[in-house]
Amino acid sequence: MEKELLQKVYEAKDVLNSVARKTNLIESKSLSIKNKVFLKSENLQLTGSFKLRGAYFKISKLSQEEKKKGVIACSAGNHAQGVALASKVNKIKATIFIPATAPLSKVEATRSYGADIRLIDGVYDDAYRACVECQKETNGIFIHPFDDIDVIAGQGTIALEILEQMPQIDAVVVPIGGGGLISGIASVIKQIKPSCKVYGVQAQNAGSMYESFKQNKRVELQTVNTFADGTAVKLPGDLTFALCKKYVDEIITVSEDEIASAVLYLIENEKMISEGAGALSVAGVLFNKIPLENKNIACVVSGGNIDVNILSRVINRALLKTCRISNLTIELLDKPGQLRDVSSIIAKYGANVIRVRHNQGGEGTDINDCYLKITMETRNQEHFEQIRKALNDSGYNILSIVQ
Amino acid sequence: MEKELLQKVYEAKDVLNSVARKTNLIESKSLSIKNKVFLKSENLQLTGSFKLRGAYFKISKLSQEEKKKGVIACSAGNHAQGVALASKVNKIKATIFIPATAPLSKVEATRSYGADIRLIDGVYDDAYRACVECQKETNGIFIHPFDDIDVIAGQGTIALEILEQMPQIDAVVVPIGGGGLISGIASVIKQIKPSCKVYGVQAQNAGSMYESFKQNKRVELQTVNTFADGTAVKLPGDLTFALCKKYVDEIITVSEDEIASAVLYLIENEKMISEGAGALSVAGVLFNKIPLENKNIACVVSGGNIDVNILSRVINRALLKTCRISNLTIELLDKPGQLRDVSSIIAKYGANVIRVRHNQGGEGTDINDCYLKITMETRNQEHFEQIRKALNDSGYNILSIVQ
Repeated sequence: MEKELLQKVYEAKDVLNSVARKTNLIESKSLSIKNKVFLKSENLQLTGSFKLRGAYFKISKLSQEEKKKGVIACSAGNHAQGVALASKVNKIKATIFIPATAPLSKVEATRSYGADIRLIDGVYDDAYRACVECQKETNGIFIHPFDDIDVIAGQGTIALEILEQMPQIDAVVVPIGGGGLISGIASVIKQIKPSCKVYGVQAQNAGSMYESFKQNKRVELQTVNTFADGTAVKLPGDLTFALCKKYVDEIITVSEDEIASAVLYLIENEKMISEGAGALSVAGVLFNKIPLENKNIACVVSGGNIDVNILSRVINRALLKTCRISNLTIELLDKPGQLRDVSSIIAKYGANVIRVRHNQGGEGTDINDCYLKITMETRNQEHFEQIRKALNDSGYNILSIVQ
Repeated sequence: MEKELLQKVYEAKDVLNSVARKTNLIESKSLSIKNKVFLKSENLQLTGSFKLRGAYFKISKLSQEEKKKGVIACSAGNHAQGVALASKVNKIKATIFIPATAPLSKVEATRSYGADIRLIDGVYDDAYRACVECQKETNGIFIHPFDDIDVIAGQGTIALEILEQMPQIDAVVVPIGGGGLISGIASVIKQIKPSCKVYGVQAQNAGSMYESFKQNKRVELQTVNTFADGTAVKLPGDLTFALCKKYVDEIITVSEDEIASAVLYLIENEKMISEGAGALSVAGVLFNKIPLENKNIACVVSGGNIDVNILSRVINRALLKTCRISNLTIELLDKPGQLRDVSSIIAKYGANVIRVRHNQGGEGTDINDCYLKITMETRNQEHFEQIRKALNDSGYNILSIVQ
């Protein structure tokens, strides 16, 4: 099967030539500390993720008769957009089931490619049930998001590009959800350059391939709940599990905080938007989980379709953690001039107040007391500590700090 | 002078070959409505902006004696980073004056390239005064951010790349601050492909070149205050004004809201971080200010060094404007069950409450009333209106809406 797969990947490369972008392999100067790190920027791919590759190649392989039946898919995100654009280019009908809880931006993006969108109340599983029913009724062709040899071959074209862009590559780090992306990449790498390592990265909260790899059998998780929503898969595929076992060197996991840090890291240092799933590979490198030194490493940044609401939360959380926004709750005596005094101290140290709440008689305080909750922009931890100390030195009791 | 300048640009191209990135010219599918629009992604340039090109070429042209004296610059942002990295590569000493009010991230980035940073209390003008004094004392070489023929030649290499990447280009749209970038680009374009138009874009709040262009003489503005801080220049350069007059077809201006929308547009549609100044060109196209149809247009996205605090504000403002976050202030009777009822209505419509303030006896309300301020995640304007209508229909008085 493996040789057949490699053959398909070469075929996919030709087919995708006129449709998909050959995304840049960008050296990340700031990540290149222990190793030389390159980013394969599939977040800058059309539709905002690598999924276009597999979906397009799969659809291009359908017979004329199959194409007439149209295709059906179920997805809350990147696969939906990949199938929709691939169908549009191939001029066939696409019906895509999306859980109603999916971010509007992804629904609208999918709709913009002309797909017939069915918004289903509930979560992914509900949408999937509706999708299966529809498939039975219409006899449309179901496009699996990962467990399909043609879909896997499409994703494998990324590895051909990396080998061409950086022949001296020593390792490739790849996000894992259902395993389609890494199956394609690892199959190509290990057949063309077996010395090159392939590492998979999963979210701790959605480590189905990680567990399966460890237990040497496909393991189904009860729940998957991660900010890397594109990888929230409970059960790896048959095909993808077999290919991972054969070709992947190691699978590591990262925490939710590590993923969020990686998203912010790419924004600040590489001026790139990635979604949680897309930043898994970078999280692995950033938190030193790849056991290599002095090597050339490619991190696949697999997608950039992050909802702006979520992005806003990631940024705000990171601002709090790095003390660029700080919260202070201060106990005040309920007498005139206290707010002025506190404000003066904060102003003196150059912090910028962005929100103030002043309440009388909070719980657990004296009947005469009141508290003041201040949110301010600070420069860093040191700057914040200066302000805290100054307030303490002036006799103010600081009740809590939220960071 | 113009032929000499073009010669210098070719020279700069060779010099920059091993140092600067040849940034991608990326087709923007979503911006390509009236025209085919390409983004010259200098936000993905090393140091996060085009400034590296000019600074590096300038420094490479210094004599050995000059290099020994070291270089001096004054900047709160991109020029600082460009000079610092260029000095590091050339192994010469760089002293850079930065106003203490500059975002810490930019200060730290500049420091990371090994420059000697002098943080000066006050604003840019104060830092500039300190810089001039230092130059007199040390005899170091001052690197002007824009009004210098070698700096301009360095920036001009962007035009050579665009012409190579897209020979059928019909127009180039370029952000303007002091005018160094557009002077370099326009000089190259008009000498190599005179039929290609060159448009400049400035922030309305910092339109010094726009005004000078109109009045046909250099005009100094009293104040410049724009979110596109990289272009906050009060007086265009001598050299840059002359080159703009000669080669630039038209200068347009965009509002602060238009710039912020363009930054968000690039995040959502192109997965790219740009700073306000960097997005000026895209704002021009997005708001239909470029008078072209069915042409190939390149927008120079000149930089991506936006402070995360600012980015967070841009995103939050855009979320409010598009009703993906909504604020409602509701008048309640001060009796049990009201908060529960309102919460039920909101939950029924699937909005996600993220902040609640509940206060008794607000100003202007009856002594028995209280008000409830709710911040929630909504899908869009229509979704928000549904919730508002449902609350109204249940007898609640909505005091204000902040969007």
